[in-house]
Amino acid sequence: MTRPLAPLSDPDALRRAAQIPPAERAALIALAHELAEAARAAILPLFRSEGLFADNKRPADFDPVTEADRAAERAMRAVLARARPQDAILGEEYGPQAGDSGLTWVLDPIDGTRSFISGTPTWGVLIGLSDADGPLLGVIDQPYIGERFLGGFGEACVTGPLGPRPLRTRAPRPLAQALILSTFPEVGTPAEGAAFRRVSQAARLTRYGTDCYGYALVAAGQVDLVIEAGLQPYDVAAPIAVVEAAGGLVTDWQGGPAHQGGQVIAAANPEIHAEALALLNA
Amino acid sequence: MTRPLAPLSDPDALRRAAQIPPAERAALIALAHELAEAARAAILPLFRSEGLFADNKRPADFDPVTEADRAAERAMRAVLARARPQDAILGEEYGPQAGDSGLTWVLDPIDGTRSFISGTPTWGVLIGLSDADGPLLGVIDQPYIGERFLGGFGEACVTGPLGPRPLRTRAPRPLAQALILSTFPEVGTPAEGAAFRRVSQAARLTRYGTDCYGYALVAAGQVDLVIEAGLQPYDVAAPIAVVEAAGGLVTDWQGGPAHQGGQVIAAANPEIHAEALALLNA
Repeated sequence: MTRPLAPLSDPDALRRAAQIPPAERAALIALAHELAEAARAAILPLFRSEGLFADNKRPADFDPVTEADRAAERAMRAVLARARPQDAILGEEYGPQAGDSGLTWVLDPIDGTRSFISGTPTWGVLIGLSDADGPLLGVIDQPYIGERFLGGFGEACVTGPLGPRPLRTRAPRPLAQALILSTFPEVGTPAEGAAFRRVSQAARLTRYGTDCYGYALVAAGQVDLVIEAGLQPYDVAAPIAVVEAAGGLVTDWQGGPAHQGGQVIAAANPEIHAEALALLNA
Repeated sequence: MTRPLAPLSDPDALRRAAQIPPAERAALIALAHELAEAARAAILPLFRSEGLFADNKRPADFDPVTEADRAAERAMRAVLARARPQDAILGEEYGPQAGDSGLTWVLDPIDGTRSFISGTPTWGVLIGLSDADGPLLGVIDQPYIGERFLGGFGEACVTGPLGPRPLRTRAPRPLAQALILSTFPEVGTPAEGAAFRRVSQAARLTRYGTDCYGYALVAAGQVDLVIEAGLQPYDVAAPIAVVEAAGGLVTDWQGGPAHQGGQVIAAANPEIHAEALALLNA
Protein backbone atom coordinates (compact mmCIF):
# COMPACT_ATOMS: atom_id res chain seq x y z
CA MET A 1 0.00 0.00 0.00
CA THR A 2 1.50 3.27 -1.08
CA ARG A 3 -0.88 5.63 0.75
CA PRO A 4 -0.14 5.91 4.47
CA LEU A 5 -2.97 5.62 6.97
CA ALA A 6 -4.09 9.18 7.59
CA PRO A 7 -4.55 10.63 11.05
CA LEU A 8 -7.37 13.14 11.59
CA SER A 9 -7.42 14.99 8.30
CA ASP A 10 -8.58 18.19 9.95
CA PRO A 11 -5.39 19.70 11.43
CA ASP A 12 -7.46 21.89 13.69
CA ALA A 13 -9.24 18.90 15.26
CA LEU A 14 -5.90 17.18 15.70
CA ARG A 15 -4.48 20.26 17.44
CA ARG A 16 -7.51 20.48 19.74
CA ALA A 17 -7.28 16.76 20.58
CA ALA A 18 -3.61 17.22 21.47
CA GLN A 19 -4.67 19.49 24.34
CA ILE A 20 -6.05 16.41 26.11
CA PRO A 21 -3.28 14.44 27.86
CA PRO A 22 -2.44 11.10 26.15
CA ALA A 23 -3.58 8.99 29.12
CA GLU A 24 -6.93 10.80 29.18
CA ARG A 25 -7.35 10.31 25.43
CA ALA A 26 -6.78 6.57 25.87
CA ALA A 27 -9.31 6.51 28.71
CA LEU A 28 -11.84 8.37 26.56
CA ILE A 29 -11.42 5.83 23.74
CA ALA A 30 -11.92 2.98 26.23
CA LEU A 31 -15.00 4.75 27.57
CA ALA A 32 -16.42 5.14 24.06
CA HIS A 33 -16.13 1.36 23.66
CA GLU A 34 -17.82 0.88 27.05
CA LEU A 35 -20.69 3.15 25.98
CA ALA A 36 -21.11 1.17 22.77
CA GLU A 37 -21.20 -2.10 24.72
CA ALA A 38 -23.83 -0.70 27.08
CA ALA A 39 -25.97 0.39 24.14
CA ARG A 40 -25.63 -2.99 22.42
CA ALA A 41 -26.80 -4.81 25.52
CA ALA A 42 -29.85 -2.57 25.77
CA ILE A 43 -30.82 -2.66 22.10
CA LEU A 44 -30.13 -6.15 20.80
CA PRO A 45 -32.88 -7.94 22.78
CA LEU A 46 -35.39 -5.63 21.08
CA PHE A 47 -34.08 -5.81 17.50
CA ARG A 48 -36.39 -7.87 15.30
CA SER A 49 -38.53 -8.57 18.35
CA GLU A 50 -41.77 -7.48 16.71
CA GLY A 51 -42.15 -10.61 14.65
CA LEU A 52 -41.35 -12.80 17.62
CA PHE A 53 -43.53 -11.02 20.13
CA ALA A 54 -46.45 -9.68 18.09
CA ASP A 55 -48.83 -12.26 19.52
CA ASN A 56 -47.70 -12.29 23.15
CA LYS A 57 -48.87 -10.37 26.17
CA ARG A 58 -47.06 -7.09 25.55
CA PRO A 59 -49.37 -4.06 25.41
CA ALA A 60 -50.69 -3.25 21.95
CA ASP A 61 -48.89 0.10 21.84
CA PHE A 62 -45.47 -1.37 22.68
CA ASP A 63 -42.93 0.19 20.32
CA PRO A 64 -39.67 -1.78 20.26
CA VAL A 65 -37.59 0.94 18.63
CA THR A 66 -38.66 3.68 21.03
CA GLU A 67 -38.10 1.34 23.94
CA ALA A 68 -34.65 0.35 22.63
CA ASP A 69 -33.72 3.97 21.87
CA ARG A 70 -34.52 5.12 25.39
CA ALA A 71 -33.04 2.10 27.15
CA ALA A 72 -29.76 2.51 25.27
CA GLU A 73 -29.47 6.21 26.04
CA ARG A 74 -30.24 5.59 29.71
CA ALA A 75 -27.55 2.88 29.78
CA MET A 76 -24.98 5.20 28.22
CA ARG A 77 -25.91 8.09 30.53
CA ALA A 78 -25.46 5.78 33.52
CA VAL A 79 -21.93 4.91 32.36
CA LEU A 80 -21.10 8.60 31.88
CA ALA A 81 -22.54 9.61 35.26
CA ARG A 82 -20.07 7.24 36.88
CA ALA A 83 -17.01 7.74 34.65
CA ARG A 84 -17.20 11.35 33.40
CA PRO A 85 -19.68 13.41 35.45
CA GLN A 86 -17.77 16.54 34.45
CA ASP A 87 -18.69 16.16 30.74
CA ALA A 88 -21.81 17.56 29.11
CA ILE A 89 -24.23 15.26 27.25
CA LEU A 90 -26.38 15.89 24.20
CA GLY A 91 -28.66 12.91 23.58
CA GLU A 92 -31.44 12.41 21.06
CA GLU A 93 -33.88 11.00 23.59
CA TYR A 94 -33.18 12.86 26.84
CA GLY A 95 -31.81 16.20 25.60
CA PRO A 96 -28.87 18.28 26.84
CA GLN A 97 -27.13 17.99 30.21
CA ALA A 98 -24.56 20.60 31.22
CA GLY A 99 -20.94 19.90 32.15
CA ASP A 100 -17.82 21.91 32.94
CA SER A 101 -15.00 19.99 31.25
CA GLY A 102 -15.45 21.60 27.82
CA LEU A 103 -16.26 18.18 26.36
CA THR A 104 -19.71 16.96 25.28
CA TRP A 105 -20.82 13.40 24.56
CA VAL A 106 -23.19 13.48 21.60
CA LEU A 107 -25.39 10.37 21.65
CA ASP A 108 -27.85 8.96 19.13
CA PRO A 109 -28.73 5.54 20.55
CA ILE A 110 -30.41 4.33 17.33
CA ASP A 111 -29.63 6.30 14.21
CA GLY A 112 -31.89 4.89 11.49
CA THR A 113 -35.06 3.95 13.32
CA ARG A 114 -36.76 3.14 10.00
CA SER A 115 -33.98 0.69 9.24
CA PHE A 116 -34.38 -0.77 12.73
CA ILE A 117 -38.13 -1.31 12.43
CA SER A 118 -37.62 -2.95 9.01
CA GLY A 119 -35.06 -5.39 10.40
CA THR A 120 -32.28 -4.20 8.09
CA PRO A 121 -28.80 -4.06 9.67
CA THR A 122 -27.79 -0.54 8.61
CA TRP A 123 -28.93 1.40 11.70
CA GLY A 124 -26.30 2.20 14.29
CA VAL A 125 -25.40 3.58 17.69
CA LEU A 126 -23.67 6.96 17.37
CA ILE A 127 -21.31 8.12 20.09
CA GLY A 128 -19.50 11.38 19.50
CA LEU A 129 -17.18 13.42 21.72
CA SER A 130 -16.99 17.10 20.85
CA ASP A 131 -15.44 20.27 22.15
CA ALA A 132 -16.87 23.72 21.44
CA ASP A 133 -15.44 23.65 17.90
CA GLY A 134 -16.74 20.24 16.82
CA PRO A 135 -16.21 16.48 17.00
CA LEU A 136 -12.93 14.98 18.25
CA LEU A 137 -13.81 11.29 18.54
CA GLY A 138 -16.63 9.15 17.18
CA VAL A 139 -18.01 5.62 17.20
CA ILE A 140 -20.48 4.15 14.71
CA ASP A 141 -21.55 0.80 16.15
CA GLN A 142 -23.74 -1.81 14.44
CA PRO A 143 -24.73 -4.18 17.24
CA TYR A 144 -26.42 -6.89 15.14
CA ILE A 145 -23.40 -7.36 12.87
CA GLY A 146 -21.07 -6.81 15.80
CA GLU A 147 -19.22 -4.14 13.89
CA ARG A 148 -17.67 -0.99 15.33
CA PHE A 149 -16.09 1.92 13.43
CA LEU A 150 -14.01 4.26 15.60
CA GLY A 151 -12.20 7.41 14.56
CA GLY A 152 -10.40 10.21 16.34
CA PHE A 153 -7.34 11.01 18.50
CA GLY A 154 -5.24 9.69 15.59
CA GLU A 155 -7.01 6.31 15.49
CA ALA A 156 -9.21 5.04 12.66
CA CYS A 157 -10.24 1.39 12.74
CA VAL A 158 -13.12 -1.04 12.39
CA THR A 159 -13.61 -4.26 14.29
CA GLY A 160 -16.16 -6.81 13.12
CA PRO A 161 -16.72 -10.09 11.28
CA LEU A 162 -13.46 -9.75 9.35
CA GLY A 163 -11.38 -8.81 12.41
CA PRO A 164 -9.71 -5.47 13.09
CA ARG A 165 -8.85 -3.34 10.08
CA PRO A 166 -7.64 0.21 9.58
CA LEU A 167 -10.09 2.69 8.10
CA ARG A 168 -8.92 4.67 5.12
CA THR A 169 -11.04 6.59 2.62
CA ARG A 170 -10.80 6.07 -1.13
CA ALA A 171 -8.28 7.68 -3.40
CA PRO A 172 -9.72 10.30 -5.77
CA ARG A 173 -11.68 9.19 -8.81
CA PRO A 174 -13.95 11.16 -11.13
CA LEU A 175 -17.57 11.64 -10.01
CA ALA A 176 -18.64 9.63 -13.06
CA GLN A 177 -17.03 6.57 -11.41
CA ALA A 178 -18.18 7.38 -7.88
CA LEU A 179 -20.64 5.63 -5.55
CA ILE A 180 -23.05 7.77 -3.52
CA LEU A 181 -25.13 6.72 -0.53
CA SER A 182 -28.10 8.48 1.00
CA THR A 183 -30.92 7.47 3.28
CA PHE A 184 -33.97 8.38 1.18
CA PRO A 185 -34.53 9.17 -2.50
CA GLU A 186 -36.44 12.23 -1.28
CA VAL A 187 -33.53 14.30 0.04
CA GLY A 188 -34.67 17.33 2.05
CA THR A 189 -36.74 20.11 0.49
CA PRO A 190 -37.63 20.15 -3.23
CA ALA A 191 -34.67 22.47 -3.88
CA GLU A 192 -32.33 20.24 -1.86
CA GLY A 193 -33.66 17.19 -3.71
CA ALA A 194 -32.95 18.85 -7.07
CA ALA A 195 -29.40 19.70 -5.97
CA PHE A 196 -28.87 16.13 -4.77
CA ARG A 197 -30.09 14.71 -8.08
CA ARG A 198 -27.60 16.85 -10.01
CA VAL A 199 -24.81 15.02 -8.20
CA SER A 200 -26.54 11.64 -8.21
CA GLN A 201 -27.17 11.73 -11.96
CA ALA A 202 -23.50 12.49 -12.62
CA ALA A 203 -22.30 9.57 -10.48
CA ARG A 204 -21.87 5.92 -11.36
CA LEU A 205 -24.31 4.59 -8.78
CA THR A 206 -26.51 5.90 -5.96
CA ARG A 207 -27.93 3.63 -3.29
CA TYR A 208 -30.41 4.39 -0.53
CA GLY A 209 -31.31 3.18 2.92
CA THR A 210 -27.98 3.41 4.68
CA ASP A 211 -28.43 6.00 7.48
CA CYS A 212 -25.25 6.30 9.57
CA TYR A 213 -23.83 3.16 7.98
CA GLY A 214 -23.12 5.19 4.86
CA TYR A 215 -20.58 7.35 6.71
CA ALA A 216 -18.90 4.20 8.00
CA LEU A 217 -18.58 3.00 4.41
CA VAL A 218 -16.99 6.30 3.34
CA ALA A 219 -14.48 5.83 6.15
CA ALA A 220 -13.91 2.20 5.13
CA GLY A 221 -13.02 3.20 1.57
CA GLN A 222 -16.08 1.53 0.04
CA VAL A 223 -17.92 4.55 -1.33
CA ASP A 224 -17.03 8.09 -2.34
CA LEU A 225 -19.85 10.25 -0.99
CA VAL A 226 -22.75 10.47 1.43
CA ILE A 227 -25.08 13.42 0.79
CA GLU A 228 -27.98 14.18 3.12
CA ALA A 229 -30.12 17.06 4.37
CA GLY A 230 -32.24 17.80 7.41
CA LEU A 231 -29.84 16.19 9.89
CA GLN A 232 -29.62 16.87 13.62
CA PRO A 233 -26.37 17.55 15.53
CA TYR A 234 -26.53 14.09 17.15
CA ASP A 235 -26.77 12.53 13.64
CA VAL A 236 -23.42 13.92 12.53
CA ALA A 237 -20.95 14.29 15.41
CA ALA A 238 -19.72 10.69 15.43
CA PRO A 239 -19.79 10.30 11.62
CA ILE A 240 -17.71 13.46 11.19
CA ALA A 241 -15.03 12.16 13.57
CA VAL A 242 -14.94 8.70 11.95
CA VAL A 243 -14.81 9.94 8.34
CA GLU A 244 -12.20 12.63 9.05
CA ALA A 245 -10.03 10.24 11.05
CA ALA A 246 -10.00 7.95 8.00
CA GLY A 247 -8.80 10.72 5.71
CA GLY A 248 -12.10 12.09 4.41
CA LEU A 249 -13.92 15.31 5.04
CA VAL A 250 -17.43 16.26 6.12
CA THR A 251 -18.92 19.69 5.55
CA ASP A 252 -22.25 21.35 4.89
CA TRP A 253 -23.24 21.88 1.24
CA GLN A 254 -21.42 25.22 1.21
CA GLY A 255 -18.16 23.70 2.44
CA GLY A 256 -18.53 25.00 6.01
CA PRO A 257 -18.69 23.09 9.32
CA ALA A 258 -21.36 20.37 9.44
CA HIS A 259 -21.49 19.48 13.12
CA GLN A 260 -24.68 21.48 13.69
CA GLY A 261 -26.50 19.20 11.22
CA GLY A 262 -28.68 20.35 8.33
CA GLN A 263 -27.17 19.73 4.89
CA VAL A 264 -24.23 17.35 5.10
CA ILE A 265 -21.78 15.94 2.57
CA ALA A 266 -19.17 13.36 3.56
CA ALA A 267 -16.46 12.84 0.97
CA ALA A 268 -13.60 10.40 0.62
CA ASN A 269 -11.17 13.08 -0.49
CA PRO A 270 -11.00 16.81 -1.32
CA GLU A 271 -11.20 16.20 -5.08
CA ILE A 272 -14.57 14.40 -5.07
CA HIS A 273 -15.82 16.82 -2.41
CA ALA A 274 -15.09 19.78 -4.69
CA GLU A 275 -16.69 18.12 -7.71
CA ALA A 276 -19.87 17.30 -5.76
CA LEU A 277 -20.06 20.71 -4.09
CA ALA A 278 -19.90 22.45 -7.47
CA LEU A 279 -22.94 20.49 -8.66
CA LEU A 280 -24.85 20.95 -5.39
CA ASN A 281 -24.50 24.71 -5.84
CA ALA A 282 -24.80 24.86 -9.65
CA MET B 1 -47.52 -17.36 20.64
CA THR B 2 -50.96 -18.19 19.31
CA ARG B 3 -50.03 -18.63 15.66
CA PRO B 4 -48.31 -21.95 14.97
CA LEU B 5 -45.18 -22.04 12.86
CA ALA B 6 -46.39 -22.63 9.34
CA PRO B 7 -44.95 -25.31 7.10
CA LEU B 8 -44.71 -24.60 3.37
CA SER B 9 -47.81 -22.52 2.79
CA ASP B 10 -48.17 -23.78 -0.76
CA PRO B 11 -49.85 -27.20 -0.37
CA ASP B 12 -48.73 -28.18 -3.86
CA ALA B 13 -45.06 -27.58 -3.05
CA LEU B 14 -45.45 -29.54 0.17
CA ARG B 15 -47.03 -32.45 -1.76
CA ARG B 16 -44.21 -32.39 -4.32
CA ALA B 17 -41.54 -32.30 -1.59
CA ALA B 18 -43.18 -35.33 0.06
CA GLN B 19 -42.29 -37.38 -3.02
CA ILE B 20 -38.63 -37.15 -1.97
CA PRO B 21 -37.79 -39.72 0.75
CA PRO B 22 -37.22 -38.15 4.21
CA ALA B 23 -33.56 -39.20 4.39
CA GLU B 24 -32.90 -37.65 0.99
CA ARG B 25 -34.65 -34.44 2.04
CA ALA B 26 -32.40 -34.25 5.10
CA ALA B 27 -29.34 -34.83 2.92
CA LEU B 28 -30.47 -32.10 0.52
CA ILE B 29 -30.84 -29.64 3.41
CA ALA B 30 -27.35 -30.55 4.65
CA LEU B 31 -26.04 -30.09 1.13
CA ALA B 32 -27.66 -26.65 0.85
CA HIS B 33 -25.74 -25.65 3.99
CA GLU B 34 -22.55 -27.08 2.49
CA LEU B 35 -23.08 -25.06 -0.68
CA ALA B 36 -23.60 -21.89 1.37
CA GLU B 37 -20.39 -22.56 3.31
CA ALA B 38 -18.46 -23.06 0.07
CA ALA B 39 -19.79 -19.79 -1.31
CA ARG B 40 -18.95 -17.92 1.89
CA ALA B 41 -15.35 -19.13 1.80
CA ALA B 42 -15.00 -17.98 -1.80
CA ILE B 43 -16.67 -14.59 -1.39
CA LEU B 44 -15.66 -13.20 2.00
CA PRO B 45 -11.98 -12.62 1.21
CA LEU B 46 -13.11 -10.34 -1.63
CA PHE B 47 -15.85 -8.39 0.20
CA ARG B 48 -14.70 -4.84 0.92
CA SER B 49 -11.37 -5.68 -0.59
CA GLU B 50 -11.32 -2.72 -2.96
CA GLY B 51 -10.45 -0.20 -0.28
CA LEU B 52 -7.75 -2.43 1.11
CA PHE B 53 -6.21 -3.44 -2.18
CA ALA B 54 -6.77 -0.49 -4.47
CA ASP B 55 -3.14 0.52 -4.35
CA ASN B 56 -1.45 -2.88 -4.46
CA LYS B 57 -0.16 -4.93 -7.34
CA ARG B 58 -3.47 -6.30 -8.63
CA PRO B 59 -4.19 -5.45 -12.26
CA ALA B 60 -6.10 -2.21 -12.79
CA ASP B 61 -9.12 -3.99 -14.24
CA PHE B 62 -9.50 -6.39 -11.29
CA ASP B 63 -13.20 -6.53 -10.38
CA PRO B 64 -13.74 -8.00 -6.91
CA VAL B 65 -17.46 -8.65 -7.33
CA THR B 66 -17.12 -10.47 -10.65
CA GLU B 67 -14.24 -12.47 -9.27
CA ALA B 68 -16.20 -13.35 -6.10
CA ASP B 69 -19.35 -14.18 -8.09
CA ARG B 70 -17.52 -16.62 -10.33
CA ALA B 71 -15.37 -18.17 -7.61
CA ALA B 72 -18.45 -18.84 -5.46
CA GLU B 73 -20.41 -20.44 -8.29
CA ARG B 74 -17.41 -22.60 -9.22
CA ALA B 75 -17.09 -23.67 -5.57
CA MET B 76 -20.78 -24.59 -5.37
CA ARG B 77 -20.66 -26.46 -8.70
CA ALA B 78 -17.69 -28.45 -7.45
CA VAL B 79 -19.67 -29.53 -4.38
CA LEU B 80 -22.65 -30.52 -6.53
CA ALA B 81 -20.47 -32.43 -9.03
CA ARG B 82 -19.34 -34.64 -6.17
CA ALA B 83 -22.55 -34.94 -4.14
CA ARG B 84 -25.41 -34.71 -6.67
CA PRO B 85 -24.15 -35.22 -10.25
CA GLN B 86 -27.66 -36.35 -11.22
CA ASP B 87 -29.18 -32.90 -10.56
CA ALA B 88 -29.40 -30.07 -13.07
CA ILE B 89 -27.88 -26.66 -12.30
CA LEU B 90 -29.00 -23.18 -13.32
CA GLY B 91 -26.38 -20.65 -12.29
CA GLU B 92 -26.15 -16.93 -12.93
CA GLU B 93 -22.51 -17.02 -13.97
CA TYR B 94 -22.05 -20.33 -15.78
CA GLY B 95 -25.52 -21.02 -17.17
CA PRO B 96 -27.57 -24.24 -17.29
CA GLN B 97 -26.25 -27.76 -16.87
CA ALA B 98 -28.57 -30.70 -17.56
CA GLY B 99 -29.45 -33.47 -15.10
CA ASP B 100 -31.81 -36.42 -14.95
CA SER B 101 -33.12 -36.40 -11.36
CA GLY B 102 -35.93 -33.94 -12.00
CA LEU B 103 -34.29 -31.52 -9.52
CA THR B 104 -32.42 -28.33 -10.39
CA TRP B 105 -30.12 -26.27 -8.17
CA VAL B 106 -30.72 -22.60 -8.92
CA LEU B 107 -27.67 -20.56 -7.90
CA ASP B 108 -27.05 -16.84 -7.66
CA PRO B 109 -23.66 -16.59 -5.97
CA ILE B 110 -24.00 -12.85 -5.25
CA ASP B 111 -27.49 -11.40 -5.49
CA GLY B 112 -27.11 -7.65 -5.08
CA THR B 113 -23.79 -6.88 -6.74
CA ARG B 114 -24.42 -3.15 -6.32
CA SER B 115 -24.83 -3.70 -2.59
CA PHE B 116 -21.62 -5.75 -2.60
CA ILE B 117 -19.54 -3.11 -4.36
CA SER B 118 -20.86 -0.46 -1.96
CA GLY B 119 -19.86 -2.51 1.07
CA THR B 120 -23.42 -2.75 2.44
CA PRO B 121 -24.33 -6.09 4.03
CA THR B 122 -27.64 -6.72 2.22
CA TRP B 123 -26.38 -8.79 -0.70
CA GLY B 124 -26.67 -12.55 -0.38
CA VAL B 125 -25.92 -15.99 -1.75
CA LEU B 126 -29.06 -17.60 -3.19
CA ILE B 127 -29.34 -21.38 -3.34
CA GLY B 128 -32.63 -22.79 -4.57
CA LEU B 129 -33.71 -26.35 -5.28
CA SER B 130 -36.59 -26.66 -7.75
CA ASP B 131 -38.54 -29.35 -9.54
CA ALA B 132 -40.34 -28.73 -12.84
CA ASP B 133 -43.15 -26.90 -11.04
CA GLY B 134 -41.08 -24.49 -8.96
CA PRO B 135 -38.94 -24.07 -5.83
CA LEU B 136 -38.96 -26.68 -3.04
CA LEU B 137 -36.08 -25.50 -0.84
CA GLY B 138 -34.14 -22.27 -0.56
CA VAL B 139 -31.26 -20.62 1.26
CA ILE B 140 -30.59 -16.88 1.53
CA ASP B 141 -27.12 -16.54 3.06
CA GLN B 142 -25.45 -13.30 4.17
CA PRO B 143 -21.81 -14.26 4.64
CA TYR B 144 -20.55 -11.03 6.21
CA ILE B 145 -23.18 -11.03 8.96
CA GLY B 146 -22.94 -14.81 9.21
CA GLU B 147 -26.70 -15.09 8.78
CA ARG B 148 -28.55 -17.86 6.95
CA PHE B 149 -32.26 -18.05 6.17
CA LEU B 150 -33.46 -21.53 5.11
CA GLY B 151 -36.94 -22.58 4.08
CA GLY B 152 -38.52 -25.68 2.59
CA PHE B 153 -39.26 -29.35 3.28
CA GLY B 154 -41.30 -28.13 6.27
CA GLU B 155 -38.39 -26.19 7.80
CA ALA B 156 -38.19 -22.40 8.15
CA CYS B 157 -35.38 -21.01 10.27
CA VAL B 158 -32.64 -18.42 10.49
CA THR B 159 -29.25 -18.78 12.14
CA GLY B 160 -27.10 -15.76 12.84
CA PRO B 161 -25.92 -13.29 15.46
CA LEU B 162 -28.98 -13.87 17.65
CA GLY B 163 -28.78 -17.67 17.42
CA PRO B 164 -31.27 -20.00 15.71
CA ARG B 165 -34.84 -18.73 15.37
CA PRO B 166 -37.92 -19.91 13.54
CA LEU B 167 -39.05 -17.88 10.56
CA ARG B 168 -42.67 -16.78 10.49
CA THR B 169 -44.25 -14.05 8.40
CA ARG B 170 -46.30 -11.22 9.89
CA ALA B 171 -49.96 -11.43 10.75
CA PRO B 172 -52.23 -9.35 8.50
CA ARG B 173 -52.35 -5.59 8.94
CA PRO B 174 -53.78 -2.90 6.66
CA LEU B 175 -51.53 -1.66 3.84
CA ALA B 176 -51.60 1.78 5.49
CA GLN B 177 -49.59 0.25 8.35
CA ALA B 178 -47.36 -1.91 6.14
CA LEU B 179 -43.61 -1.78 5.42
CA ILE B 180 -42.44 -2.33 1.84
CA LEU B 181 -38.94 -3.08 0.63
CA SER B 182 -37.56 -2.85 -2.88
CA THR B 183 -34.12 -2.62 -4.39
CA PHE B 184 -34.36 0.63 -6.38
CA PRO B 185 -36.77 3.58 -6.39
CA GLU B 186 -36.90 3.09 -10.17
CA VAL B 187 -38.87 -0.15 -10.31
CA GLY B 188 -38.92 -1.69 -13.80
CA THR B 189 -40.47 0.11 -16.77
CA PRO B 190 -42.28 3.46 -16.38
CA ALA B 191 -45.63 1.61 -16.22
CA GLU B 192 -44.24 -0.82 -13.63
CA GLY B 193 -42.84 2.08 -11.65
CA ALA B 194 -46.21 3.81 -11.63
CA ALA B 195 -47.91 0.62 -10.42
CA PHE B 196 -45.29 0.21 -7.69
CA ARG B 197 -45.78 3.79 -6.51
CA ARG B 198 -49.54 3.25 -6.16
CA VAL B 199 -48.76 0.60 -3.54
CA SER B 200 -45.83 2.46 -2.01
CA GLN B 201 -47.81 5.65 -1.51
CA ALA B 202 -50.58 3.73 0.28
CA ALA B 203 -48.12 2.06 2.67
CA ARG B 204 -46.66 3.33 5.93
CA LEU B 205 -43.03 3.16 4.82
CA THR B 206 -41.00 2.07 1.79
CA ARG B 207 -37.30 1.42 1.98
CA TYR B 208 -34.79 0.68 -0.78
CA GLY B 209 -31.52 -1.12 -1.26
CA THR B 210 -32.32 -4.54 0.12
CA ASP B 211 -31.98 -6.99 -2.82
CA CYS B 212 -32.54 -10.59 -1.67
CA TYR B 213 -32.32 -9.51 1.96
CA GLY B 214 -35.81 -8.05 1.64
CA TYR B 215 -37.31 -11.50 1.06
CA ALA B 216 -35.49 -12.78 4.13
CA LEU B 217 -37.07 -9.97 6.15
CA VAL B 218 -40.55 -10.90 4.87
CA ALA B 219 -39.86 -14.46 6.03
CA ALA B 220 -38.57 -13.18 9.38
CA GLY B 221 -41.78 -11.27 10.05
CA GLN B 222 -40.09 -7.84 9.86
CA VAL B 223 -41.82 -6.38 6.82
CA ASP B 224 -45.04 -6.98 4.91
CA LEU B 225 -44.09 -6.77 1.24
CA VAL B 226 -41.27 -6.90 -1.28
CA ILE B 227 -42.25 -5.67 -4.75
CA GLU B 228 -39.82 -5.84 -7.67
CA ALA B 229 -39.70 -6.15 -11.45
CA GLY B 230 -37.24 -7.33 -14.05
CA LEU B 231 -35.99 -10.30 -12.01
CA GLN B 232 -34.28 -13.42 -13.33
CA PRO B 233 -35.23 -17.01 -12.40
CA TYR B 234 -32.07 -17.33 -10.28
CA ASP B 235 -33.09 -14.18 -8.35
CA VAL B 236 -36.34 -15.70 -7.10
CA ALA B 237 -36.11 -19.48 -6.63
CA ALA B 238 -34.54 -19.41 -3.16
CA PRO B 239 -36.55 -16.39 -1.94
CA ILE B 240 -39.82 -18.06 -2.97
CA ALA B 241 -38.97 -21.19 -0.99
CA VAL B 242 -37.89 -19.23 2.10
CA VAL B 243 -40.88 -16.86 2.15
CA GLU B 244 -43.43 -19.59 1.50
CA ALA B 245 -41.90 -21.89 4.11
CA ALA B 246 -42.35 -19.08 6.64
CA GLY B 247 -46.03 -18.71 5.83
CA GLY B 248 -45.95 -16.03 3.14
CA LEU B 249 -46.59 -16.13 -0.56
CA VAL B 250 -44.70 -15.03 -3.65
CA THR B 251 -46.38 -14.48 -7.01
CA ASP B 252 -46.07 -12.34 -10.09
CA TRP B 253 -48.07 -9.09 -10.19
CA GLN B 254 -51.06 -10.97 -11.62
CA GLY B 255 -51.07 -13.53 -8.81
CA GLY B 256 -49.54 -16.31 -10.92
CA PRO B 257 -46.30 -18.26 -10.39
CA ALA B 258 -43.19 -16.10 -9.98
CA HIS B 259 -40.38 -18.60 -10.32
CA GLN B 260 -39.58 -17.55 -13.89
CA GLY B 261 -38.77 -14.04 -12.62
CA GLY B 262 -40.08 -10.80 -14.09
CA GLN B 263 -42.55 -8.95 -11.83
CA VAL B 264 -42.48 -10.37 -8.31
CA ILE B 265 -44.42 -9.62 -5.14
CA ALA B 266 -43.60 -11.36 -1.85
CA ALA B 267 -46.24 -10.94 0.82
CA ALA B 268 -46.42 -11.84 4.49
CA ASN B 269 -50.00 -13.11 4.18
CA PRO B 270 -52.85 -13.44 1.66
CA GLU B 271 -54.64 -10.34 2.94
CA ILE B 272 -51.80 -7.87 2.30
CA HIS B 273 -51.02 -9.68 -0.97
CA ALA B 274 -54.58 -9.09 -2.20
CA GLU B 275 -54.56 -5.44 -1.14
CA ALA B 276 -51.25 -4.78 -2.92
CA LEU B 277 -52.23 -6.73 -6.05
CA ALA B 278 -55.39 -4.67 -6.41
CA LEU B 279 -53.35 -1.45 -6.46
CA LEU B 280 -50.65 -2.88 -8.76
CA ASN B 281 -53.42 -3.63 -11.29
CA ALA B 282 -55.65 -0.59 -10.62
